Parts: sequence; C-alpha cells; structure tokens
Amino acid sequence: MSEKPKFAVFGGGSWATAIVKMLCENLDEVGWYMRSKSSVDFIKKHSHNPNYLSSVEFNLKQLKLSNDINETVSNADCLIFVIPSAFLHQELEKLTVSLEDKIVFSAIKGIVPETSLIVGDHFNTHYKVPFNNIGVISGPCHAEEVALERLSYLTIASADDEKAKMVANVLSSDYIKCTTSDDVLGTEYAAMLKNIYAVAAGIAHGLGYGDNFQSVLMSNAIREMKKYVKKVHKMKRDINDSAYLGDLLVTGYSVFSRNRLFGTMIGKGYTVKSAQLEMSMIAEGYYATKSAYNLNQQKGKKKAKTPIIDSVYEILYENKDPKKIFKKLTEKLD
Amino acid sequence: MSEKPKFAVFGGGSWATAIVKMLCENLDEVGWYMRSKSSVDFIKKHSHNPNYLSSVEFNLKQLKLSNDINETVSNADCLIFVIPSAFLHQELEKLTVSLEDKIVFSAIKGIVPETSLIVGDHFNTHYKVPFNNIGVISGPCHAEEVALERLSYLTIASADDEKAKMVANVLSSDYIKCTTSDDVLGTEYAAMLKNIYAVAAGIAHGLGYGDNFQSVLMSNAIREMKKYVKKVHKMKRDINDSAYLGDLLVTGYSVFSRNRLFGTMIGKGYTVKSAQLEMSMIAEGYYATKSAYNLNQQKGKKKAKTPIIDSVYEILYENKDPKKIFKKLTEKLD
Repeated sequence: MSEKPKFAVFGGGSWATAIVKMLCENLDEVGWYMRSKSSVDFIKKHSHNPNYLSSVEFNLKQLKLSNDINETVSNADCLIFVIPSAFLHQELEKLTVSLEDKIVFSAIKGIVPETSLIVGDHFNTHYKVPFNNIGVISGPCHAEEVALERLSYLTIASADDEKAKMVANVLSSDYIKCTTSDDVLGTEYAAMLKNIYAVAAGIAHGLGYGDNFQSVLMSNAIREMKKYVKKVHKMKRDINDSAYLGDLLVTGYSVFSRNRLFGTMIGKGYTVKSAQLEMSMIAEGYYATKSAYNLNQQKGKKKAKTPIIDSVYEILYENKDPKKIFKKLTEKLD
Repeated sequence: MSEKPKFAVFGGGSWATAIVKMLCENLDEVGWYMRSKSSVDFIKKHSHNPNYLSSVEFNLKQLKLSNDINETVSNADCLIFVIPSAFLHQELEKLTVSLEDKIVFSAIKGIVPETSLIVGDHFNTHYKVPFNNIGVISGPCHAEEVALERLSYLTIASADDEKAKMVANVLSSDYIKCTTSDDVLGTEYAAMLKNIYAVAAGIAHGLGYGDNFQSVLMSNAIREMKKYVKKVHKMKRDINDSAYLGDLLVTGYSVFSRNRLFGTMIGKGYTVKSAQLEMSMIAEGYYATKSAYNLNQQKGKKKAKTPIIDSVYEILYENKDPKKIFKKLTEKLD
C-alpha cells in the first residue's frame, strides 16, 4: 500500500453517492464503481447521479468512475462497499482480483442472503480479508441530509483502531463528524436490526397508532436490540451510543426512511409486492427481517425474545394480518 | 379510607383533563378541582373543558367539579395533582385540610421552584405525606392522543407496590396500558429532564439542524439523563424503559410537544418572553432547565456532565446566542 491509501466506493445508490461526496471533500481522487453503465455515462456527462441525490454536483476530475469492478478494486487500497446486501453476492462473483491485501469497509446494512453472514463475516470467510482489515461505516445518517450538508455523525468501527481512525479522517468534514469504535459486530447487527424496527414503526403508523405508541415501540425496540446483539456477540457496549440508539431513531422517526415508508404501506393494507413496486426501490428491512428472524430461530432455546422482529416477520413472510399481529404485540410491550 | 378509594384530580390543563377522562372510564365518581371558576361553570354547562382537549365530552353525572381545593381534597382518598410545578406551591397554600392520610400521586413534571424539591419530596417535607403514600404518573403520553383514544402507555411508580397497582388499575382501559415501578425519584427526574431535552430538540430544529443531528442529540440526551439520575438517586434501573426513553422520545419528537415548540421558536430567534406570549401557555421545560441546572451545580465537583442542559440554560437564562451555543454543543456530542 502506498503512503496515502487510495479509496474506492462500490455502489450506485443514495448512500454510496453520499459517501463519494464525503470522500471528495478530502481526497483528490475517488474510485467509484457502479454496475450500471448508463449511470456511469450519465455522471460523466452531467456530473451528478441520475437516480439518487441528483442535487449533488461532482467535480469529475476527482472521480474515477467505472462499471468494471475489477478495475476499481485494482486501483484502490481501501474499498468501501455500499451495495445492498441482497445484491452483494452476485456483484462480488464478478471479482477476478484478490481482496486479501485490501482494507474493506462496509456501509451495507443487512445479511448476505446467500451465505446468511453479516457483511464483515462474508468478506472474511469468502474473500480471505483478515478481520483486522475489515470495518463498518454506520449512521445515524440519512444520505439526503448529507446531500444538504446538514451536520451528521458517523460511527466508524474496526477491530484495528488505526484503520478506523484513517477512514474516519477521510470522511470527516464541516458537516460530517466521525467517532470510532471497536464493536464491528454490534455495529453491523444494530445497523441491520434498526431497519426492521423502522418497518415496524411504519406499520404502526400505517395502522393509525400515534406518537405515544410509537415511542413505546421504539423504547422496546432498543431493549430488544440490546438482547439480540448480546446473544450474537457479548461485549461491553453502551446501547445508547449514537451508533445504536441514534441510528435506530433516525430511521424510525425520519420521513426520509424507506423502511418506514415500506412499513407504512404494509400497515395501510398494501401487499409486500405492491408496496415494493410502488416504491421502486428495495427496503433493506424486508430482507433484514428474514435474516434476523432465521438467525435467531437457529439458536433454538438460546434465542433472544424478539416480539417486534417476530411480528414484522409474520406480517411480511407469513401473510398475517398487520392489524391482528400488532394488537397482539401491544400486549407484549411495556 | 373506605373500601373503594375515592379519586380526585387537581388541575385544569390538558394532562389533567386527560387523566379525568381515563378515570371516568372506570369510576362512577371523579372529583375535579380547578382554580378557574369560569372553567368549572363552563364544563358544568357544556360538558367539556373550554381550553384543553375540548373534543372530550364528559358525563357530568360522574364529575364532582369544584374550584374549592379544600372541598375536593376532603371528599377524596387518592389525590392526583396535575398542576404545573410553577403554580403548585401557591395552590397548596390554600389548603386548610390535612394531606397526612391521603394517597398523593403526582403527574406533574418539574421541580417546585419555591422549595427546589421534586413534587414527591415537596409533599413529604411540607405536607407530611409519608413516602409510602406518594406516587408518580408518567408517560410516554400526550394528552392529545388520550383524547383521541389512541393506545398509550403509562408508568405508575410508588414505593408501595400495592398503591401503584391500585392507581394503575383505575387508569387502565382499552386505550391505556399501565406498568408499575418502584423508582419514584428516577421517574420524576426523568419526567422533568425530558422537557429540557425537548426544548433542546426544538432549538436544534429551529436552527435548521436535521434528522441526523436530532437523533444524535436524543441519543446523547438519554445518556446524559442516565448520568444525571444516577447522581440524584443510585439504583438499578434500565434507562431504556418506556418511562425514561419512551417518555423522552414522545416529547422530543412529537409535533404535540409544547416544549419542543417553545425550543423551535427560541431557535428561530424569538426571545423567551415573546415565545411565551405567542404560545399562551407555559413550557415546563423552561422552569425545569433552571431547576435541573441549579440542582446539578449545587453538587460542585460531584456534578454530572450535562452539556445539553447547560446549553439550554445558557440560551434561556443567560441570553446567549442559540446558534453559537449549539455550534459549541455539536463538538461535545458523539
């Protein structure tokens, strides 16, 4: 690796675009891979992403755009993956170059469906990236607010403190503040779970529950998250850190949240299929629900009590009536 | 006390009105004292409160209205006080009858300014109500949603578990669920502090900070609250319980919150005076800020670190510039 590591972002969505923007505040050159050739061509011509955060104008001199994943990987030392977990596996299958010497950070929420692994584990198991080279970039942060340059905080987690600091450093700017953490697993699971709770918040909203119930739901969610993450990886952590609680709140309460919107539509009586068509984008919480539910079930008697995740699962995957399921859920909350 | 204790509510505001409504779901008779004779007369004629939750129609046969506090106290065994803390002292000075044998529950948020005591301590110290007869009714709950009969959860805290259960019982209904707790002090302080954090959330909103920052502010607030309450009264408590976190969220995030609205006006450049005039009601958080700040300062070197409370104090009581103070605050959060 050269003195100054080269960075590349993988993904073409709103969060990927926001991260490229953050890097461009500090770096002369940022690699950017996206699958769609037409999007790459569009940005090269119009200096902004055609589909997401289109108000963000890039300086093309800084961008090294490509729709060849191997080219972008080869040209960089530190890779930031921001591809939805549901598509990560198929994207990575295109790789012919090795990731073994790369630093790999993930800003992806969720579990890779094909391997049932969280993203860090997936890179370690299938691409031999050592855990010391793996990290996570987590909210509380909406891409839309980054586009507006509104003050936002990120958590950068890695087992290797130096690498966390290095990434925090290139992401920080006037409007982005970063804190570092060594809790990679907790941060990854929290990032995944929060999307499920945002769906739950949306369902409640869609069913007509008010602010009072919403706050009880969120306060139960943070406790449920605590139990879940503890089962997965026991360590000393303050679940009220911004990385856990803040991230949950920004997703559960924000009008920008796609997961919340997805839930609202379900609560209002849309089917999963029609809600997804209507939104024309994937709500990560949909996949996260299945992964989190199954992962917990696998633990048998040792599983965590997760009435909220279970309720969302029954609604999304067992076609149960949201109204009835939430009525039952209200009895389990306190 | 008779077999079935008689209940009375003291106060004429929205929360008092909501609690009378809850009691009327279960009791044949509810005493209701309010200071204003014209309000009492209005309700007797029109069956609803002229100023608050006016959509709530009462059955006058259930209400024992009075603007004589001594009469209402004499006729009841269990007294629920819902008078803003800033006015409690002057109202209680009208008392000629004793409270010594009464069960006294407080749904008041804040510190009694004249004595610098939280409400429970005030009743114990100045009215000889034994601690075993004292309790607290706490959210997360907006009166406006109770009026709409939207599902809401309350926490009923008392050192005497039997009394907490008794009060929980008469407040519970289709749309009100109650849990009980023995953490009277923690519940009271949390109820007070949350109003300060709601003012802070409002100031941030008024200054143009977005959802990302808001969630970081709230996640820092819950940690600050934890530290503060621990200094005041150390006991095992889960600060993510609905009584603490939920209550904070409903106030910090809700459009119904007067404290948040007050903060928003301050953030937008109103003076304290003009914001209070404009709102024509008192934001509890204004008084709570002073009380909480002073109480913490009194602890000298043992005081809790409370950058959020301190910031709100400087803005409200030292006329400092909200923009500058919040800019400084952003450096202290994580």
